[in-house]
Order: sequence, then C-alpha cells, then structure tokens
Amino acid sequence: MKDHTGTFPAKSDIEDAAKRIRNHVHYTPVLTSQNLDSIFGCHLYFKCENFQKAGAFKSRGAVNKVFSLSNDEIKNGVCTHSSGNHAAALARAAMLRGIDAHIVMPENSSTVKIEAVKHYGGKITFCKPTLDARELTLRQVKNRTKAFEVHPYNDFDIISGQGTAAMELFQETGAPDIIMAPVGGGGLLSGTALATHYFSPGTKIIGAEPARADDAFRSFKAKTFYPSENPDTIADGLRTSLGNLTFPIILQHVDDIVTTSEEAIIKAMKLIWERMKIIVEPSSAVPLAAILENKPDCRNKNVAIILSGGNVDLTSLPW
Amino acid sequence: MKDHTGTFPAKSDIEDAAKRIRNHVHYTPVLTSQNLDSIFGCHLYFKCENFQKAGAFKSRGAVNKVFSLSNDEIKNGVCTHSSGNHAAALARAAMLRGIDAHIVMPENSSTVKIEAVKHYGGKITFCKPTLDARELTLRQVKNRTKAFEVHPYNDFDIISGQGTAAMELFQETGAPDIIMAPVGGGGLLSGTALATHYFSPGTKIIGAEPARADDAFRSFKAKTFYPSENPDTIADGLRTSLGNLTFPIILQHVDDIVTTSEEAIIKAMKLIWERMKIIVEPSSAVPLAAILENKPDCRNKNVAIILSGGNVDLTSLPW
Repeated sequence: MKDHTGTFPAKSDIEDAAKRIRNHVHYTPVLTSQNLDSIFGCHLYFKCENFQKAGAFKSRGAVNKVFSLSNDEIKNGVCTHSSGNHAAALARAAMLRGIDAHIVMPENSSTVKIEAVKHYGGKITFCKPTLDARELTLRQVKNRTKAFEVHPYNDFDIISGQGTAAMELFQETGAPDIIMAPVGGGGLLSGTALATHYFSPGTKIIGAEPARADDAFRSFKAKTFYPSENPDTIADGLRTSLGNLTFPIILQHVDDIVTTSEEAIIKAMKLIWERMKIIVEPSSAVPLAAILENKPDCRNKNVAIILSGGNVDLTSLPW
Repeated sequence: MKDHTGTFPAKSDIEDAAKRIRNHVHYTPVLTSQNLDSIFGCHLYFKCENFQKAGAFKSRGAVNKVFSLSNDEIKNGVCTHSSGNHAAALARAAMLRGIDAHIVMPENSSTVKIEAVKHYGGKITFCKPTLDARELTLRQVKNRTKAFEVHPYNDFDIISGQGTAAMELFQETGAPDIIMAPVGGGGLLSGTALATHYFSPGTKIIGAEPARADDAFRSFKAKTFYPSENPDTIADGLRTSLGNLTFPIILQHVDDIVTTSEEAIIKAMKLIWERMKIIVEPSSAVPLAAILENKPDCRNKNVAIILSGGNVDLTSLPW
C-alpha cells in the first residue's frame, strides 16, 4: 500500500483508481431534466451513482481499496463495520477479488441492507446498535480472522476511488460553475473536492449536509473538528463524523458547506422521483434540498450534483 | 392528412414519424440489469419510455399526429377525452405547435394527471367518470370549439408514432429474440408490431395484458373483437378496448398475447424499482410480470421490453 501519510491523494491516484475500477463498476450516466431546470432556474447535471453497482458510489472506493491491496494483505480477507452502503460495496468488491468479507452490522440494520450483504457473500456478525459495540465487535472479528480492515471513508484509497465519480462527470459535462455533493464522513466530498481541484479547477465545490447532522458544517466553519452528536436525520448515509483524513482535504479544497432542513430533503427527494422517474435515497437529495432553500444561489448557473445512492426501503417512504 | 383507409401504416410512415418527432421527444435510453438478468435467466433490454417527455410513450404518437395535421385542420386546436397519459401528451404536443388542446377528463382523475395537463396549458372540461359521459362531453366540446379530435390509439398517425420506440430500440440493440409490449387500446402494441415487421422481422412479438382486463387476449385468440368489460386492474393504462384500426394489425403481426396476475404485476414493478432504481407505472411492469409467470418462456433469450411510462402517484403505492 502506498504511504500517503501527511499528503493528500495526487491527481494520478484518482486517475489510477479510475483505471483500477473500470471493469468492476459502472460508468454512470449524467442525467438532466428540463422540468427541474425550469423549477430551479439553473442547469442541473445529475451524476447518477444511484445506478452504481450495489446502488451507491461506495462501490468505487471499495473496489479501488480491495484491488490496491497486495495478495499478502488480503490473504485473510477484509472486514469493516457498517449498517449501510459500504457494507454491500465491500462485500461485493471482496467477492470480485475472491476473498472473504467479514461485515459487522448493528442488529437493527434494515432487511434490505442485510440481504444485499448476503447477496454478495459477505459474512455478517451482528452487534448492538451503538458505535462502541460496533467497534468492539469489529476488533473481536479482526483478532479472530486476521482480516484487513477497510474503513468506509477515512482512507486515501477510498477517497481516491470516490473522486472518480466527479472525474467522470467533468469528462462528460465539461466544467460546471458549481459541483455539490452530500457530506457524512466526508469520503465522497473530499474525493469530489480533489477531483475538482485537479480536473476542473474553475468549479466551485460545495458540500451539503442535513441541519440535524451538521458536524461537518460546524467543523468547517470553526476550522476545528466537531464529532457528529445525536444526528437525527432521514438522510441515513450522512449521520457519521468526518475523519482525520477527510477533514483536512475538505478544509483546504471545499469552498463552502451548507445545511438544509428535513422538510426540504423530503421535498427534493420527491421532486427527483416524480420529475426524473429515478429512485434516490434521502442522502442523495440533500444538495438539491439546499438549492431549494437558496443555499447556495445557483440562479442561471451550471450546477452538477452527485446523486450518491439509490438504496431505500420502498415500503417505508417519507411521504 | 394521408388516407390510410384499408391499409396499415408503411415502413416509411414510421420513418417519417421518427423524423417528425425527433426534436420534440426524447430518444430514450435502453437499460440493462445484470441483477434482473440473473433472476430471470435471460438477457433483458428495457426501452425506457418512462423517461419520455410527459412521462410516457404517448408523447410519440401525440406529437406525430399534431405535427401531421395541416394548418387548416388545427386552426381550432385539438381535443380528446382521457384520464391518463394521452391527455398530458396531447396537451404538450399542442403547446409545442402553439394551438389549444381541449381535454375532457373524468372528475375522479388523479391530481397528478390533472396537474400535468394544466402544466402543458391544456384546457380541461370535467365530466362524470363513465365512457358515455366522456364521449358526450367530448362531442359538446367539439361542437363548441370545432377542435380536431385526436383519438388516443385508434389512429394510424398515432400508431406510427408509437412504433418509433421499437424502431429506436432495434437501432440500439440489434435484433432481439423477443420483443414485448403491454396492450390496452393497442396503440403501442400495433406500432411495435409494425416496427418489428419492418425493422427486425426475425423478432417474435408478444403482447402482455392483465388477466383482469384480458379483452385483447380473448379477441386475439378468438380472432373476434371483444370489448373490455369491467376491467379491474392496477395497470390503469390498460383498461381500454382495442380499436378497429389497432386490432387488425395485432391479429396480423403479433405472435402471441399472454396474460398475467395482479400479484405478478406488483412484484415485477417492485423488482424494477428496487433493482434498476427507476420508476415505472404498473402498466410498464406487465410484460416482466408475464415472464415472471413463465409466459412466454424466455430462458437464455434476448428479450426487449418497452417500459411504457412512469407516471404513478408516489403517495399511493401498491406495496
């Protein structure tokens, strides 16, 4: 594994990631909607990671990481704790490389997510739904299996992998005025920020976060790390705290972070479903929700949005 | 207007329709899904008319018809009765040509459909929700406005327009073993059958219909027209009867019509939403539902399906 300590991923790391993952993930389409453009008064470009393998951008980072590791490093498989999209993405990446994936999942994870991990052959260990229990159980699994731990976002190979989504987007649309991505742990936002810095430096990069899980917003404004405290948002992919690798990249390369209400998230999500006829999860709708609340001002601008994923329980919708 | 009496639309009618509508409708994508292929044991190609303008294939026929009419014919606008996708498609086509569209809608039409017609500037007259009331009200509107009546499917220009979807599909996928389309009034199925006959003659063409609205199935098997009687299906686009122009084309050029249960329609619709992350209306799911029930046998075959539309009330889903 490359030693990135003290440095950010380079342009070539994202380019290498793109080559490494090419045969294992989708080059997702960029969709537009005249209908939404006329509602929002700007030109919107949606990078559809909801159509990505395993239903989310997480497949990019997971495949890049798993295929970056040496045969020796992965001889006992990989492991992680996750209740969400990283779990399925890592299980899938491990399956592709022919190794085991040990996934620690909280016992209250949704059936859909559990089924997805099983579908890709992941070996699940359930635990109590607290961060302490997840970390403790993962340590036990790791001691027992000697598997290689793959963090969902605080890892430069993961970050470089997530950056390939924005890189592809610029290849297709040219340089938008603004690019927006949701922010949870910061893997997607930091990867997007680096890709923008390298491949579309004139584009302004803005993170969007639920007001009810605004740790990244507060950390960014204060330039000091604040953890996520009692996040209470429908955007279930964005409840995590920034990491010590993602935060410095975001501080240096992101232009602004904006927050949005739960009401706007649900409204934006429904607009995307109704007008574009595509399924996105609540986290994906957070940037459009922010535009709905005029943060930032996008009038007449070309605005690219990364739709992060499409995994949602269809029997429990928020409207 | 061309006189088609006694003849079917020709190859050139579909080609002309394609040219006529090119700048006014989407060339929709053909999507595939490894996930669904592995479930169904065949190679599926989905022509995504759910992404079409106004949310359904109906925009093809409506635009072709409205732009086929002479200035004299359309000087008083166009009119129709419809509770569904034809209403919005015709209103939109009229707006593009700068003429009025008078739409008779039953008073129990869904809010979503009413809003869509209004969005495109359609002038709505409401009536009681019976076929008699719809036809009577339309006659009154027609007498008052002298508008040109555009039937939703029993019209060769409409049929030629709908045929462009299959024509585009063959351009993209080559010749599949089977092509399937849902059948209500038969506009889409007859257009698809003609396009297949002209552009992919080796492809088998199969119509799919809800068992609870099986007038086309019965008519096809008996080679005698039976009207739709008390149709009671979730596939709201498929409750209408065949027309005297669509039925002969279907008799001559369709290889088979199969029926499917309501349970399979809902299951197939949910599979498309979950696995492909796209929104389709129940009518769109009818062909896949039939495959789910092994009618026809598609094992290891290349099977193209026209996903007819994506207009669905998100607050009232069938699961």
